[in-house]
Amino acid sequence: MASSASLLSLALCSLLLFQVCSAQFETGRVWGSSRSQRKSQQQNECQFRRINAQEPDRRITSEAGITEIWDENDDQFRCAGVAAIRHTIEQRGAGRGYHSAAIPGCPETYQSEQESESRDPRQGSRDQHQKIRKIRQGDIIAIPAGVADWFYNDGQSPLVLVQIMDTSNFANQLDQNFRKFFLAGNPQREIQGQRGQPSRHLYRGSEKGRGGGGGQEQRSGNIFQAFDEQFLAEAFNIDTDLARRIKNENDNRGIIVRVEEQLEFLSPEFSEEERRQSSQGGGRTGRWSANGIEETFCTAKLRHNINDPSRADIFNPRAGRLTTVNSFNLPILRYIQLSAQKGFLYRNAIMTPHWNMNAHSINYITRGSGQIQIVNENGESVFDGQVQEGQIITAPQNFAVIKRAGSDGLEWISFKTNDNAKINQIAGRASTIRAIPQDVLANAFAISREEAQRIKFNRREIGIFSPETRSRGRRD
Amino acid sequence: MASSASLLSLALCSLLLFQVCSAQFETGRVWGSSRSQRKSQQQNECQFRRINAQEPDRRITSEAGITEIWDENDDQFRCAGVAAIRHTIEQRGAGRGYHSAAIPGCPETYQSEQESESRDPRQGSRDQHQKIRKIRQGDIIAIPAGVADWFYNDGQSPLVLVQIMDTSNFANQLDQNFRKFFLAGNPQREIQGQRGQPSRHLYRGSEKGRGGGGGQEQRSGNIFQAFDEQFLAEAFNIDTDLARRIKNENDNRGIIVRVEEQLEFLSPEFSEEERRQSSQGGGRTGRWSANGIEETFCTAKLRHNINDPSRADIFNPRAGRLTTVNSFNLPILRYIQLSAQKGFLYRNAIMTPHWNMNAHSINYITRGSGQIQIVNENGESVFDGQVQEGQIITAPQNFAVIKRAGSDGLEWISFKTNDNAKINQIAGRASTIRAIPQDVLANAFAISREEAQRIKFNRREIGIFSPETRSRGRRD
Amino acid sequence: MASSASLLSLALCSLLLFQVCSAQFETGRVWGSSRSQRKSQQQNECQFRRINAQEPDRRITSEAGITEIWDENDDQFRCAGVAAIRHTIEQRGAGRGYHSAAIPGCPETYQSEQESESRDPRQGSRDQHQKIRKIRQGDIIAIPAGVADWFYNDGQSPLVLVQIMDTSNFANQLDQNFRKFFLAGNPQREIQGQRGQPSRHLYRGSEKGRGGGGGQEQRSGNIFQAFDEQFLAEAFNIDTDLARRIKNENDNRGIIVRVEEQLEFLSPEFSEEERRQSSQGGGRTGRWSANGIEETFCTAKLRHNINDPSRADIFNPRAGRLTTVNSFNLPILRYIQLSAQKGFLYRNAIMTPHWNMNAHSINYITRGSGQIQIVNENGESVFDGQVQEGQIITAPQNFAVIKRAGSDGLEWISFKTNDNAKINQIAGRASTIRAIPQDVLANAFAISREEAQRIKFNRREIGIFSPETRSRGRRD
Repeated sequence: MASSASLLSLALCSLLLFQVCSAQFETGRVWGSSRSQRKSQQQNECQFRRINAQEPDRRITSEAGITEIWDENDDQFRCAGVAAIRHTIEQRGAGRGYHSAAIPGCPETYQSEQESESRDPRQGSRDQHQKIRKIRQGDIIAIPAGVADWFYNDGQSPLVLVQIMDTSNFANQLDQNFRKFFLAGNPQREIQGQRGQPSRHLYRGSEKGRGGGGGQEQRSGNIFQAFDEQFLAEAFNIDTDLARRIKNENDNRGIIVRVEEQLEFLSPEFSEEERRQSSQGGGRTGRWSANGIEETFCTAKLRHNINDPSRADIFNPRAGRLTTVNSFNLPILRYIQLSAQKGFLYRNAIMTPHWNMNAHSINYITRGSGQIQIVNENGESVFDGQVQEGQIITAPQNFAVIKRAGSDGLEWISFKTNDNAKINQIAGRASTIRAIPQDVLANAFAISREEAQRIKFNRREIGIFSPETRSRGRRD
Repeated sequence: MASSASLLSLALCSLLLFQVCSAQFETGRVWGSSRSQRKSQQQNECQFRRINAQEPDRRITSEAGITEIWDENDDQFRCAGVAAIRHTIEQRGAGRGYHSAAIPGCPETYQSEQESESRDPRQGSRDQHQKIRKIRQGDIIAIPAGVADWFYNDGQSPLVLVQIMDTSNFANQLDQNFRKFFLAGNPQREIQGQRGQPSRHLYRGSEKGRGGGGGQEQRSGNIFQAFDEQFLAEAFNIDTDLARRIKNENDNRGIIVRVEEQLEFLSPEFSEEERRQSSQGGGRTGRWSANGIEETFCTAKLRHNINDPSRADIFNPRAGRLTTVNSFNLPILRYIQLSAQKGFLYRNAIMTPHWNMNAHSINYITRGSGQIQIVNENGESVFDGQVQEGQIITAPQNFAVIKRAGSDGLEWISFKTNDNAKINQIAGRASTIRAIPQDVLANAFAISREEAQRIKFNRREIGIFSPETRSRGRRD
Repeated sequence: MASSASLLSLALCSLLLFQVCSAQFETGRVWGSSRSQRKSQQQNECQFRRINAQEPDRRITSEAGITEIWDENDDQFRCAGVAAIRHTIEQRGAGRGYHSAAIPGCPETYQSEQESESRDPRQGSRDQHQKIRKIRQGDIIAIPAGVADWFYNDGQSPLVLVQIMDTSNFANQLDQNFRKFFLAGNPQREIQGQRGQPSRHLYRGSEKGRGGGGGQEQRSGNIFQAFDEQFLAEAFNIDTDLARRIKNENDNRGIIVRVEEQLEFLSPEFSEEERRQSSQGGGRTGRWSANGIEETFCTAKLRHNINDPSRADIFNPRAGRLTTVNSFNLPILRYIQLSAQKGFLYRNAIMTPHWNMNAHSINYITRGSGQIQIVNENGESVFDGQVQEGQIITAPQNFAVIKRAGSDGLEWISFKTNDNAKINQIAGRASTIRAIPQDVLANAFAISREEAQRIKFNRREIGIFSPETRSRGRRD
């Protein structure tokens, strides 16, 4: 672990986060209360005529990375009730890093010594803090709303995080604007969502600085900046000079900062004995294995890797694979009301035409390219085009979708606004068409019974279809 | 079963449906996820000054029936968050028919032979499909959002379906517009709800066709129309000619189509042995009886008959009866968050003054006529008039209501936006007035204790009151 | 119990109520269905630049008390989705009184005799009604939406009730306007919330009376006023004269009325034998003790006293105490989705800087004064000022807050829009800062490790901090 690693400074997201780290990482943050509920959109006008595959439209440069933000006023984000951000955290590494969430009410379970709390922890370099998780490419990370967390890249290459924040979730009781705040550093205002009528927002913003320079209302900082120094000093029981310095008012490092020396924190390793036993296939397992009490509040699993091919839920060696993370394999998603699906279509393969029954699907292309068609409830095409790495395209609930990989295959991750999102397949062995009597199909489509039979039975694969079968299957 | 029967072509409702088939049938479709939740209305202005008993204001004629749609911009529908549609499916029959919902993830359990899946089902006329339900007058049918379903009338008279679609339900994550789409046929645009500001909607609609003929944006069809033929052919593994034909672009039959020959599908009958045993009162029951595993996901009961007098929950031989279907007797309603009540008041009988505690009540008059008064929270009358067969009148949550049957009695069905809707009765043996000490009533109303006693105890019936008792009960 | 006591006449709140009775009483009403859910705000613009500590802005004088209403269009109420009302019910007493809620479907369990229902209860002065609860200062009372209730002050001093009504709760299916209606008396229109654009509301109001005097649309009365007298007479089986009189059209007493004689109702007392056994420490407990079936629907506990120091959840003899009522100690709050916290800071003590993770916090100052600072997600101060008894100041979800008591201490009650509201503490032994490795803090704040250690460990108290420790703790 070399020096000069990078750190996404203490980012507290006041909203639901779901983030994927593409190319290097896929990580997601999410959240909800146990009673959290997705709401329908406030806006009455989600009559899509056109959806576009989008790249981020704003960029913030920090000392040790960049942050890119998708336009939250784009209909596809506004109507799905989410915001999307991509952080690229610099530096040497090989797709590895650390993440930690500070969960209120939970103890600091990583302790430098077995000392009792009564001894003064300020003496020497001893420390104690909450659990820190190693992360790697393809990890989905779920973060409860209102919980502070941070990332640290100790690897040899940039760490890319894609975050989906669910502003429509019940856990957000304020308006639909995306809000995020920082405990440290001096972040820019631009990272805040401004979904309301922009002019009105600006108006309200300028009420304060109108007569004067007007620059003040763009000021934005960490959570401590607007508190009285004396107050802070008293609350932390520190001197006012230090209280003033944690406001970081003249800090220009941004939200991703460089760690000047090696970052020290506690990280458990296998003991010598464990290693010995483990290599012998002995009975004791390592500290990280399941122990039956993992799913208490303070030990809830927040991370699930979605890249591992052995976890694929649907696999067709001639077409590709689909891997799902939902509340059945990552239980905290039950509270957060989000889920995700990783899709990988091989060259020219097709994903079955389908619609999302109970969720919007926010698709982030992680690799390759392909063609997508999306059709609304009026039978009108709202998207028909090529997509490529780094773009987001949303399929609203109940809109019909077809995807086909290009010559290099197509990989994507779909963030879905339901913890157990379901699709309704139109073609293939598990399709709605198969559930309907062929005579009903024949009359409804005004075709012959034999043709109805072909529509029902010609495509025998489930979910993802190989490209070559058509000529074989055609019997006409 | 003669030829020339009718069929409501594959209607997929993208929203929550609850439909009642009046005169001939009462059927309802509904739905929700297990976490589905009703929301308050978006619109801030539901300050009713006036509610009107309404008949449908739009009509669409199909080959074999008509579809009538209530104005979804009427305050009573907008504020209750529902849309209402009535389908009349032509033809000979006696209040019978078939309904089937294609539930994703469930197998095709009706199979023409006991053949294994590995044998080619395309050979010959063998078929397999999901369960098909016989329906009759008074059936309430619940349909999950996002599930495709169809109706078939094989009877000797028209089949009338009244549908209530709950656009405010959690299962709808988009805006408050009512959306429905079709897998087959070539439906008209008019069936779509357009709740937003109409002018704005039109504006958006005309953005596309402005310079030109402008007629195009009214085009509406089945879900396949906007997909690329080549894409469809590949997905279904069929030739492009058939792919083009299932778009039904030149189909003018509408959404209710005539079945040219007898419609064939699998329908279980009692075996000879069962019949023998059944007539002997033997131990084995028929295939349709409860078996303890009926309520799994794929076998969930979707239908409950609400017309049968023996199912009445409140019965007064001098006043009428009330029958409720809610999540206690039709469990899927727990997920759908809707319920219904059938009311039948005999000549001149009265339903107790009451308010709906936790739901709006959308009342569809199925027979007879009567007088209804509805009062808002300011003590102002918002409706005081006659109602008659075929009309809808909504009682918003917490508005006080009295109903009195006319000389022919009054029958209605109340669709309620809560799976366990409760009313608060103002008069009668189960009333709020009875729960209050008479001295409190005397002081609050500034009346004597003896008068307070009469208000509490003079009406001893529950819920529905006979018309004649007044003179008997009057003791003053 | 002297004559001339006061009564809050039958107030039915159509919305969620949570009320606190300050100085004399603290009582709260709340409610929801078992599936009730808090929604995010409809309004898109809750971009607070400024929050003010507010006193009521409207006052209604009744015969025996006054009612004061906070401006529901104030951003802090609009965005939190609540309305606030304070009733002051006159008269002699010492912080005691009675409350009763009429719960539909529950029997009248207080009966004057063991007579059977078949005997005519109208004979003589016998009565039967639902349970009546004694209330005292500091009681929080939860009232389900749609349930009628009333208060009675038989004490020697005014009874003050502070009510918080949650209009954003799932149990309210209409718009965000606060609605309340009355079963008796002749209340003024002013008590109704008018959250919509006021001009538009007035416009709609005047549509009716425009050409004429215009005074009519201000008319407001009890729920019976707009019903037909004949109809009412028939429903209650009374004569039309009495039906007309319960409309109370010429009643000018307002919503709090004077009880002319002693109010009579049934109130259980210990029997002689119970008293004897109780004083001997015998086995039998009184009628009011828990019996294991208390929490059925009809016997649900609706009241919890939050003033009793022995119930404090956090206590620091040098700083103060915090007492919480949530769904763990008052289970009905699980359905109502609200909770409350009583705070008492001693002279100059500090409450930890914190943010509310999953709720808005509506703070009503019950005694003393102090300083509060509230900071939004942009690090901007939205409130920095003195607060004093009788004011309300709201801390929106995820806004950071610090409170410091003045020289007389500070007492308040926080109503929270979640049945298990959580805060995220920034300083002290249970803080987020403590969960983070000190090296991460040092890099994020650009301070030394030793300084990071001081920020983490200098303040060792939890939640509420004594004022004097600063100089002791400062080690620099």
